Amino acid sequence: MQAAIIAVGSEMLTPTRLDTNSLYLTDKLNQLGVEVALKLVVGDHRGQLESAIRFASIHAQLIILTGGLGPTEDDLTREAVSSATGRPLAIDPQICDWLEARFASFGRKMAEINRRQAYALEGAEVFPNPNGTAPGQWLALPGKQYVVLLPGPPGEMRPMADKEFFPRLQQILPPLALSTLTYRIAGMGESDLDTLIAPTYKQYENPVTTILAKAGDLTIHLRAQTSSQSESDRLTAELGAKLRALVGERIYSDDGSPLEATVLRLLEAKGQTLAVAESLTAGMVGARLAGIPGASHSFVGGFITYNNTRKQTLLGVESDALAQHTEVSEPVALQMAAGAKLRAGSDWAISLTGYAGPDGGTEENPVGTVFIGLAGPDGYLTAHRFRYPSGDRDRVRQFAVQSSLNLLRLALI
Amino acid sequence: MQAAIIAVGSEMLTPTRLDTNSLYLTDKLNQLGVEVALKLVVGDHRGQLESAIRFASIHAQLIILTGGLGPTEDDLTREAVSSATGRPLAIDPQICDWLEARFASFGRKMAEINRRQAYALEGAEVFPNPNGTAPGQWLALPGKQYVVLLPGPPGEMRPMADKEFFPRLQQILPPLALSTLTYRIAGMGESDLDTLIAPTYKQYENPVTTILAKAGDLTIHLRAQTSSQSESDRLTAELGAKLRALVGERIYSDDGSPLEATVLRLLEAKGQTLAVAESLTAGMVGARLAGIPGASHSFVGGFITYNNTRKQTLLGVESDALAQHTEVSEPVALQMAAGAKLRAGSDWAISLTGYAGPDGGTEENPVGTVFIGLAGPDGYLTAHRFRYPSGDRDRVRQFAVQSSLNLLRLALI
Repeated sequence: MQAAIIAVGSEMLTPTRLDTNSLYLTDKLNQLGVEVALKLVVGDHRGQLESAIRFASIHAQLIILTGGLGPTEDDLTREAVSSATGRPLAIDPQICDWLEARFASFGRKMAEINRRQAYALEGAEVFPNPNGTAPGQWLALPGKQYVVLLPGPPGEMRPMADKEFFPRLQQILPPLALSTLTYRIAGMGESDLDTLIAPTYKQYENPVTTILAKAGDLTIHLRAQTSSQSESDRLTAELGAKLRALVGERIYSDDGSPLEATVLRLLEAKGQTLAVAESLTAGMVGARLAGIPGASHSFVGGFITYNNTRKQTLLGVESDALAQHTEVSEPVALQMAAGAKLRAGSDWAISLTGYAGPDGGTEENPVGTVFIGLAGPDGYLTAHRFRYPSGDRDRVRQFAVQSSLNLLRLALI
Repeated sequence: MQAAIIAVGSEMLTPTRLDTNSLYLTDKLNQLGVEVALKLVVGDHRGQLESAIRFASIHAQLIILTGGLGPTEDDLTREAVSSATGRPLAIDPQICDWLEARFASFGRKMAEINRRQAYALEGAEVFPNPNGTAPGQWLALPGKQYVVLLPGPPGEMRPMADKEFFPRLQQILPPLALSTLTYRIAGMGESDLDTLIAPTYKQYENPVTTILAKAGDLTIHLRAQTSSQSESDRLTAELGAKLRALVGERIYSDDGSPLEATVLRLLEAKGQTLAVAESLTAGMVGARLAGIPGASHSFVGGFITYNNTRKQTLLGVESDALAQHTEVSEPVALQMAAGAKLRAGSDWAISLTGYAGPDGGTEENPVGTVFIGLAGPDGYLTAHRFRYPSGDRDRVRQFAVQSSLNLLRLALI
């Protein structure tokens, strides 16, 4: 089955708003074996909306509309669907009673304008909306075509889709068993990963393999669909094992969790603690770690040393090291890590110092160069030099955060 | 003039990818007085794409296609536009030469497959692509309709749109003078701001006023368009002055720059320095500040004290204060700020301690409660209690960062 998603609302045709409902719907639809063939964004304009529904009906058996179900004159989805399908609208007394009761529960009388929301298409099933005043509708048309009306606000759309729409959809779909597997990977680039695994995953049409990339962080998704759960599971397990053999310990999680969660889990398993000493990232590593609930079991805190004086006063970096090697150097990264470990009283410490740009850098160490130090138990002390693509200050910093967490992970395993 | 934007590519019909090119294009189109009437996302499917172009041509005079201009069999935009418009495709020898030269400059021979990219629509103007191998095309049709083909990757699309497409478009548009004004605001909520200024801005259809909101950060955009620059400027200045009189010093910038940039500018003007002491935000304030190039002139660094022991050892918070008042309290916020100022040797220090959730909190100070301390020159020391909506750990932390920077800004002015 192919679906078309139509997002209704002029605000989504401005430079600042995107239709993100379609991502949520697409994810769930794909899990049910339904592909999305088309997406449209249409303003609050009845003629265009009607025309869009007709266009979508040529290419999709399932047409999902989000938005335009409010009480105002601008909310035209009901009317446009009625015109496009030839199904008249009529007041549904049940919706009307429900709306009046809802307003009464807030101690308010329903405004006449809200009566618009009580109109249902002839023959439609109505989806209740516990989170707002716009009910949804499900309309079966001749020739196994279906039109679904859902509210626009994600806080109303998502619960209604989950509770009403997808279960209703499942009733008309052939049963399909889904199996998924997610690997997250650090320490290699997207094209290197693809070169490594493409010859293997391209042998499989099922599972479908997708690779996602952001600064220093890669994700492989496998998704198998067959008529039997055990067969789907077998397929993802088989391809998953082959990919794991190729990618090895660069896979840091297979449950979707981010790198900092893996690091915290490894630390907690050993009963060890971590401090940070951040220069160019100025708190980004700490903020990433503390984004995980329960981080305080292993992450104790640390130091932001954004200039040389504080590298000396807060971490004890020697002025000789700074003078001889500059602040972006292996000796300074080592001293920062050792100083942070000592002064924060932790088992491990990560340090980062580098040139994020746009200014700074030397001939030897241009913008994009970052030294990352790592101090650990039993005198463990090491530093690595990284060169990231320069030009985007924030991207250099994000790459550096990812590398530092990955270095610690590799040291812990 | 009304435009339709068609994004071509099956990957944008998956759960993880959105068409963001349309936001960039919409912004620039709006500045030229062109409204976007429709947006579509179509997969790599020739029939659907052809049908989408026909549908768009009913509702828009300008049809912009992004993507599908690559060399592979999946890249079907050229062919679909040709079928939909009836304009035949032919090899353009100039593009062919240019492509061969481009490959030669990398020391490579052009693969036969790349010849597909040398096909141009009859009568089209060709846009060169210095950032890739896919040239763009501009096609004028009878009845003042226009079709534009742009590459999909933003790094190719944006420069080509700026350098070739928008200048070409401007030639066929009536001259329109644009004037814009942006206020950024902290220290109030979106609905309070709208209640305050709506009666004023609603008196004006020109400038158009839009309000954007994210955690603790509001932006007002004014955009006036008339046939004369002085009239457009007069209109934004007039409404701008009225809104400034209402919002007052809660406006922290009128050049689009973020709150941390304003804080750094104020500090630098006074020749003063800043340190941070972060608990629940664990480095987010530092990372925000260091995101501004040149931050090191005023921002020296600071402390991440993610547990109580480090609040004591790194900042000198007294164990009595922790025992009597808990770590989320005014006395602890005050001692953290005073300790950070002293130990980092800065003129100012910000401290943050609070419950981001999901766990933690007390009856008196539930999840979402944050105390922010501020220490400054001449014994200045203060702390404020904030209550943010709980339920989203990251949002609580972002609100807290914004509040802390705004407190410092208000103390500096």
